[in-house]
Amino acid sequence: MGFKTDTIAAISTAMTNSGIGIVRLSGEDAFSIIDKIYKGKSPKLLSEQKSHTIHYGYIMDGEQTIDEVLVLLMRGPHSYTGEDTVEIDCHGGVFVTRKILETVIKYGARPAEPGEFSKRAFLNGRMDLSQAEAVIDIISSKNDYALQSSVNQLKGSVHNKIKEIREVILYHTAFIESALDDPEHISVDGYGDSLLGVVKDLQQKIQCLLDTADDGRIIKEGIKTVIVGKPNAGKSSLMNVLVGEEKAIVTEIAGTTRDVLEENIQLQGVSLNIMDTAGIRDTSDIVEKIGVDKAKENAEKADLIIYVVDASRPLDENDHEIIEMIRDKKAVILLNKSDLSTVVDKKALETLITKPMIDISAKEETGIHELESTLKEMFYHGDISFNDEVYITNIRHKTALADALSSLKKVEESIENQMPEDFFTIDLMDAYESLGSITGETIGEDLVNEIFSKFCMGK
Amino acid sequence: MGFKTDTIAAISTAMTNSGIGIVRLSGEDAFSIIDKIYKGKSPKLLSEQKSHTIHYGYIMDGEQTIDEVLVLLMRGPHSYTGEDTVEIDCHGGVFVTRKILETVIKYGARPAEPGEFSKRAFLNGRMDLSQAEAVIDIISSKNDYALQSSVNQLKGSVHNKIKEIREVILYHTAFIESALDDPEHISVDGYGDSLLGVVKDLQQKIQCLLDTADDGRIIKEGIKTVIVGKPNAGKSSLMNVLVGEEKAIVTEIAGTTRDVLEENIQLQGVSLNIMDTAGIRDTSDIVEKIGVDKAKENAEKADLIIYVVDASRPLDENDHEIIEMIRDKKAVILLNKSDLSTVVDKKALETLITKPMIDISAKEETGIHELESTLKEMFYHGDISFNDEVYITNIRHKTALADALSSLKKVEESIENQMPEDFFTIDLMDAYESLGSITGETIGEDLVNEIFSKFCMGK
Repeated sequence: MGFKTDTIAAISTAMTNSGIGIVRLSGEDAFSIIDKIYKGKSPKLLSEQKSHTIHYGYIMDGEQTIDEVLVLLMRGPHSYTGEDTVEIDCHGGVFVTRKILETVIKYGARPAEPGEFSKRAFLNGRMDLSQAEAVIDIISSKNDYALQSSVNQLKGSVHNKIKEIREVILYHTAFIESALDDPEHISVDGYGDSLLGVVKDLQQKIQCLLDTADDGRIIKEGIKTVIVGKPNAGKSSLMNVLVGEEKAIVTEIAGTTRDVLEENIQLQGVSLNIMDTAGIRDTSDIVEKIGVDKAKENAEKADLIIYVVDASRPLDENDHEIIEMIRDKKAVILLNKSDLSTVVDKKALETLITKPMIDISAKEETGIHELESTLKEMFYHGDISFNDEVYITNIRHKTALADALSSLKKVEESIENQMPEDFFTIDLMDAYESLGSITGETIGEDLVNEIFSKFCMGK
Repeated sequence: MGFKTDTIAAISTAMTNSGIGIVRLSGEDAFSIIDKIYKGKSPKLLSEQKSHTIHYGYIMDGEQTIDEVLVLLMRGPHSYTGEDTVEIDCHGGVFVTRKILETVIKYGARPAEPGEFSKRAFLNGRMDLSQAEAVIDIISSKNDYALQSSVNQLKGSVHNKIKEIREVILYHTAFIESALDDPEHISVDGYGDSLLGVVKDLQQKIQCLLDTADDGRIIKEGIKTVIVGKPNAGKSSLMNVLVGEEKAIVTEIAGTTRDVLEENIQLQGVSLNIMDTAGIRDTSDIVEKIGVDKAKENAEKADLIIYVVDASRPLDENDHEIIEMIRDKKAVILLNKSDLSTVVDKKALETLITKPMIDISAKEETGIHELESTLKEMFYHGDISFNDEVYITNIRHKTALADALSSLKKVEESIENQMPEDFFTIDLMDAYESLGSITGETIGEDLVNEIFSKFCMGK
């Protein structure tokens, strides 16, 4: 896989006026380009200065001063990309930052593609693919757990785990192949039995990683949460309390909500993608009916259902329909309107369904803290420790792990069916390859390009 | 004017996900705070490292890794603020950047107010007030000329000019006061005459600066341009051509445009704030009538009027009204619809009014380049040279200059009326004070606070 050594440049900060803007250059000519456009107090050229130093001065286009800047010098291989890198910290106006980018391009750099700095870091062996993918996850992380898990991935948590498994596979593949090449000196008699143990152990390790993928998705994307209940149970009021503003229209008229409203909220470091839906009932109103269908559809796909019961009115057929709907789902039941005289209590409900139940008043905002703790308890058993555990948060990694697992299952079958040893090695190598796609060791240029094209500009 | 030496911190990049985010710290504890939260490869503390160096590592909150970062160290007084300064370059996600800010605050920094870094730079004598104001002008500059003039101001163009004038005033005030204190040795006989020459010279210098203020405003804010014409002359089509997209609704129905549409466009480095307005005619439609009134009102206040004539229809009473309206204004006349058979020509129009005239077709986009050149010619007589000339772009500076000029006029009157010499010094000192408010030497804390509060966060 070849790569270019020309010099790329991009704006690495956001295109909004702010205090500081950064234009980054990477490549063979990064230093010679900055020499042509930098004017400082020292007569020394920047290319003669030490690596990892900061220089105050001006960016010039000939006689014209573009801006007062700080220039950061980082020589390859001790830079993000592994190449000679220059960062120009300028005033953070959109126009002036663009002007500096134009100037470095005028003097020989070419505009970088999105993710091209990180792609070079990968191609130059500064990080593996799982680490490069962690970079973009860190940037898009919206809560503590997502950030923690991405930083760990950047530090090599996934990389190390995959490397460990691949080394075992490679060792055994090599052993079998040597034995097949040199049957006089290396015997594979009874080797199948010991390999079976190894393969089962590897399968278990991969399964453990796969098991984290659901939590991993939730960590990264948040818990897909749907609020359901019969009309006028107080779903929209609850939504507004959780979001902290009047997002959903609340009236006393049953059937006020029809569209599905979606908000992202943070509860004690847990991210919820929360949806308010139409109250569930039989209705002849066409728009409302579409809303009810959408509510059911979303509840079906939810990670979590918050079922709001109007405790001031007896349970009716709509409630019974909802109870059946949520029976096999992760759900929490809220007995709302605890501020009014209530006719539904926990005991009565507990005869119908077993789920965590909490008395709340969306109106008076009581019980909300208990709801938060319950949700945290349901999804994170205590605080998640990121010290030892590796979370798979990337769908691409999940697929590759599943492929590796199925290849190892084939090895297991071959052993049990007493197939010839060369059958083992084919599937072992398939597993090895699948796992290698996670770290990027066995991946085509097209896929590499596709992965990095999703990065933001300047990264 | 006292100032605080506690340690302030803020995010200096925009709050949008991007490649790199910067958290900046300035103050006595900047280095001790970073020591507590930075973990790198070297066992040396960052506070023991050299100034103007860059360090790769991690920001930690105890055992928890927040992000992989580069840390920039700049010791006072060789930093922007003049204080010990640390910049943390982290991944540019909004959440992770905020998290790093929270961490530095947890370990002893306090959140900076908007503009507080620049305010400290000013209070620590790193730049005068006109230079600090240039910082924010650079960030908000939208075209080459605005950027150039702000960068020059940052480099001290206004500062130097004001300093030069103030020195002359101070010299003469001091001379008069010494003479009054020691009349036996220093004579002021005939001094009025020579002072008159000096004062007139200073007045002229200030007047020259004031004369640049209009150009300065245009450089900074753009040329307030209003497109006028009778209904259906093609004003909205022209607007769309100039803007480069279908911003204004165009139909064949006269009176389509009612609201004033405003866009900012760049023509060869010149910034135009361009307004499309309702076609001018007598109308009974109430909404359209409001639109016509607004069009006239805006034309009144414009720096430039673009009068679009429908050359395919004879001039009518509406055209005659417009011609009268623009007679004393800076204006350019476009003979539109040159693609159709035309009945109005330049010669006929030239008998009515003398303005630059251009044949265009908004439909076929011809004549636009000539319009651009004409506009550039009208506002910038050739290319503006920023090498020698100082432009006053700040309304506060303009007011202070006008005050100084009027004080110097009073000195002139006193001399001509042969008033006692101590009358001269009072007004000379007033002029000295007014000019000092530009550089910030004679300005109250309240005004300083007000000026910096308009800065963006993190600058």
